[in-house]
Amino acid sequence: MFRVNENYQKLPGSYLFSTIGKKVAAYQNANPEKQIIRLGIGDVTQPIAPVIVEAMHKAVDEMGNAATFHGYAPDLGYEFLRNAIAKNDYAARGCDISADEIFVSDGAKSDSGNIQEIFAPDNKIAVCDPVYPVYVDSNVMAGRTGIYDAQTGMWSNVIYMPCTKENNFVPEFPKKVPDMIYLCLPNNPTGTTITKAQLQEWVDYANKNGSVIIYDAAYEAYITEDDVAHSIYECEGAKTCAIELKSFSKNAGFTGVRLGYTVVPKDLKCGDVSLHGMWARRHGTKFNGAPYIQQRAGEAVYTEAGKAQLREQIDYYMRNAKAIKEGLADAGFEVFGGVNAPYIWLKTPDQMTSWEFFDYLLEKANVVGTPGSGFGPSGEGYFRLTAFGSYENTVAALERIRHL
Amino acid sequence: MFRVNENYQKLPGSYLFSTIGKKVAAYQNANPEKQIIRLGIGDVTQPIAPVIVEAMHKAVDEMGNAATFHGYAPDLGYEFLRNAIAKNDYAARGCDISADEIFVSDGAKSDSGNIQEIFAPDNKIAVCDPVYPVYVDSNVMAGRTGIYDAQTGMWSNVIYMPCTKENNFVPEFPKKVPDMIYLCLPNNPTGTTITKAQLQEWVDYANKNGSVIIYDAAYEAYITEDDVAHSIYECEGAKTCAIELKSFSKNAGFTGVRLGYTVVPKDLKCGDVSLHGMWARRHGTKFNGAPYIQQRAGEAVYTEAGKAQLREQIDYYMRNAKAIKEGLADAGFEVFGGVNAPYIWLKTPDQMTSWEFFDYLLEKANVVGTPGSGFGPSGEGYFRLTAFGSYENTVAALERIRHL
Repeated sequence: MFRVNENYQKLPGSYLFSTIGKKVAAYQNANPEKQIIRLGIGDVTQPIAPVIVEAMHKAVDEMGNAATFHGYAPDLGYEFLRNAIAKNDYAARGCDISADEIFVSDGAKSDSGNIQEIFAPDNKIAVCDPVYPVYVDSNVMAGRTGIYDAQTGMWSNVIYMPCTKENNFVPEFPKKVPDMIYLCLPNNPTGTTITKAQLQEWVDYANKNGSVIIYDAAYEAYITEDDVAHSIYECEGAKTCAIELKSFSKNAGFTGVRLGYTVVPKDLKCGDVSLHGMWARRHGTKFNGAPYIQQRAGEAVYTEAGKAQLREQIDYYMRNAKAIKEGLADAGFEVFGGVNAPYIWLKTPDQMTSWEFFDYLLEKANVVGTPGSGFGPSGEGYFRLTAFGSYENTVAALERIRHL
Repeated sequence: MFRVNENYQKLPGSYLFSTIGKKVAAYQNANPEKQIIRLGIGDVTQPIAPVIVEAMHKAVDEMGNAATFHGYAPDLGYEFLRNAIAKNDYAARGCDISADEIFVSDGAKSDSGNIQEIFAPDNKIAVCDPVYPVYVDSNVMAGRTGIYDAQTGMWSNVIYMPCTKENNFVPEFPKKVPDMIYLCLPNNPTGTTITKAQLQEWVDYANKNGSVIIYDAAYEAYITEDDVAHSIYECEGAKTCAIELKSFSKNAGFTGVRLGYTVVPKDLKCGDVSLHGMWARRHGTKFNGAPYIQQRAGEAVYTEAGKAQLREQIDYYMRNAKAIKEGLADAGFEVFGGVNAPYIWLKTPDQMTSWEFFDYLLEKANVVGTPGSGFGPSGEGYFRLTAFGSYENTVAALERIRHL
């Protein structure tokens, strides 16, 4: 008799955003007349920029013509896109990353879930707390996290690095050295970040201790402050200790288009074993390339017109972030983030738990946010709002919250 | 110090098609004047059908408009596509598969590589020999296959079911019962298949012995004979023992578009544990939905115009298959397959090994095929040609082979 991967049974409940979706759907069904405003899941609302739409139309036409049809893409991505990434995201920032160290994928969620596969099952992981759930859940599925304690919401074999207002949301070096360190900066969910000098300390720590950093740079396009790194490879020595994950979802609105990439530098090794070669093998075996149409869309992101149009989108969302942050502060909330990231992290009022505040906000203001505790135990008592709504909805939501 | 997944080091050489690609590139570089005809990798050459191109243009426009923009897709796929699949691929064939048992993905290669994750690491797998390399390699990466014997080309913990001309390419029931049985029918690489009655015996075997069948139906659109099943769910009892993988690459030319789906019936359980729930959790955690544009393309496959246009494409490729099969037979080769599948499987002449014949064909005829031994030890002495070239190239390749 076949048997199943028992680690799946250890996962408590369902994926955070599925739970929220179900709760909201149930409320809407019971109250069909209510106009719900969603500032919960980090999904964008602005349409795809004109220059990217144009690039996709062109690619679709190419696919419909025998002379310009594209079948299987190169496993690791088309040269035109990898070159554009290397030039714009790395060379332009002084980072020495070559095109063949870039692996194009169908999105950063897949990559951030799959990357743990190339590591040993007994590696110990460290995560910021709160944290994007995929890092932990994908390691649970791989049997790397030990036993779950429902009381504390913690796994016995995961090192948690609390990020709270007490430490200004800067993770501290763990006492026991982790093998794999997940860092998402600017941070989801807190919307906060650390300086480049602080990131350099993490790179030094990893190199000194033989840890690997899985660096999620999904939100780098929202950075406004000069002393914040856009890529971990801006730090000296990062190529021997860090993998960088990058999404097109937040800088170009590709949540429904699907495109991402991962950088695995050739200098990153475990003894003689090149992680670059391992990830290439994984890509070649379990993935068949990102679609041609999407890769042309990605290329358009880096054109001059693309950069200008996307700058407008990001400015649009950051205007929302400012409105939320200031509006909530005016209403007496304690708020964080929103300066280098499209997320605002607030302290729940009156000692409410995160889920209590979720229900309260849904029922009283018909506004959906994300409970901080869904991101980890140190998220309890916090709540996330995103700047990805329309400006009108964002202002309307704030108006409702102000009148609670 | 972090450690890597040691199973990766056990993989011999590189992925088959990467090796072929490198050999061909080296030959072309050394002989830039030669016109190489590629009948090796199973990539299509006909452009995307007009009705699908139209659907993609429409979807691209929707993505460029705030009112019709689509962000994150539902994890498991849009209803419009899942309904079209349930109706056309299942209900129309008398199979009782509901839309919510269908999981839309970015392609069957990803699914066939990832599906093993939901099973226990000590499950024993059985594969046909020769076989699509992804089934074995993804299980090697998961540590399920034991030790590789370079002499025999076999893994100590894999049950091989030889499919050769001696048994008419029909796999026989293994003496030791496997936990997981991979079946690809019509078969890649041999281009042969089994009857529905023979498939029913496999379903009965799996149900009786508690095995799960991973059924890859990528080539079902090429079936021409009445007594061959298009889906394993045409067999009684398949819903309690089988997962079906389906590609859009071969029936609609989506090798560069990327779309596929997997059926996990709700009746498929291991004790109390629903595999449907596990795959849903995997999808929700490590995947972010197939792109909206691609799902609209998939929907167009099932329109009346789509069906007619794709019928023409398949007829086109099957005309190639017939030309290859008859041309090779005329030239004195022993040939198999090509009736219900776009692959022709030939016995190498003069006791040549598969790779010897590969080099011979590349150098003497400038034709690229795939060495049978690349698909497993019982593929030694065989060679695969695909019908996915243009008709002109196919005929030209045959002409060259005839004059060898």
